[in-house]
Amino acid sequence: LLPDSYEERLALGCSQVQLSFRYESRDQRFTIYVMQLSNCSPLCLPANQKIHVRLVMLPCVEATRCLFRTRSSLPQDVVEVNEVFGMQISHSALRQKTLRVDVCNSIKPGHEECLAGAQISLADVSCSEERCTKWYNLLSHAYMPEINNK
Amino acid sequence: LLPDSYEERLALGCSQVQLSFRYESRDQRFTIYVMQLSNCSPLCLPANQKIHVRLVMLPCVEATRCLFRTRSSLPQDVVEVNEVFGMQISHSALRQKTLRVDVCNSIKPGHEECLAGAQISLADVSCSEERCTKWYNLLSHAYMPEINNK
Repeated sequence: LLPDSYEERLALGCSQVQLSFRYESRDQRFTIYVMQLSNCSPLCLPANQKIHVRLVMLPCVEATRCLFRTRSSLPQDVVEVNEVFGMQISHSALRQKTLRVDVCNSIKPGHEECLAGAQISLADVSCSEERCTKWYNLLSHAYMPEINNK
Repeated sequence: LLPDSYEERLALGCSQVQLSFRYESRDQRFTIYVMQLSNCSPLCLPANQKIHVRLVMLPCVEATRCLFRTRSSLPQDVVEVNEVFGMQISHSALRQKTLRVDVCNSIKPGHEECLAGAQISLADVSCSEERCTKWYNLLSHAYMPEINNK
């Protein structure tokens, strides 16, 4: 049975995504590693509906690709993603960007519904060439409208 | 003259907010310091309209205060805020939270329009008692609808 009340969802804790970032100054190349999702149960996914991770680099500039999607996987409590996305960008432009990461369900090609996400300021991405790995909380979109009701 | 095309806004770079976080384990107290806003021109604020910073701790739990607002200030390129907000929360509950930070204009009491914001995962807030200060990019809400059009 899927929990659907606000309290039941909260009790499950939050889902998380593990990401790694790396900036290579010599090639002006930024790489995003989407590693895994954990504790997916609060997303309340039907067991037969596949999910994917969608990345958007914002603000989006015409000339540059800013949208990326992982392959779809069946939901499990832990989803190993292990996909890598790269883009050419200067370090100063990168530091003005915000990366939006969403877990979406793949209803049919061209239609996706995003369930939860994180928004990551890239203001402090270092250019030390080291790969920096972190877990980020995914905020369910179901909790977002409440901001406007306070 | 205020720039209003997408390209003109992008050329101005992004606005940023400087925040500090501190968690004191002994008192289970989390403190958010809203320090300053910088490069506010991309927000395209009319010079006579005051702005404030709104903080929302999400997901919001009935029993706990989760909404905070700074005083209003007249927009300038750099706005010194220097306000502090504290809350009682266990470290494990804190690490499941996402802090939404928005710059809003104060049209009249009870009415605010949020112009740009950041969303900060608190998954890695340390309980070392040290105050950790960072700049976060503010993503203009004007750029958000584009996510859904890709």
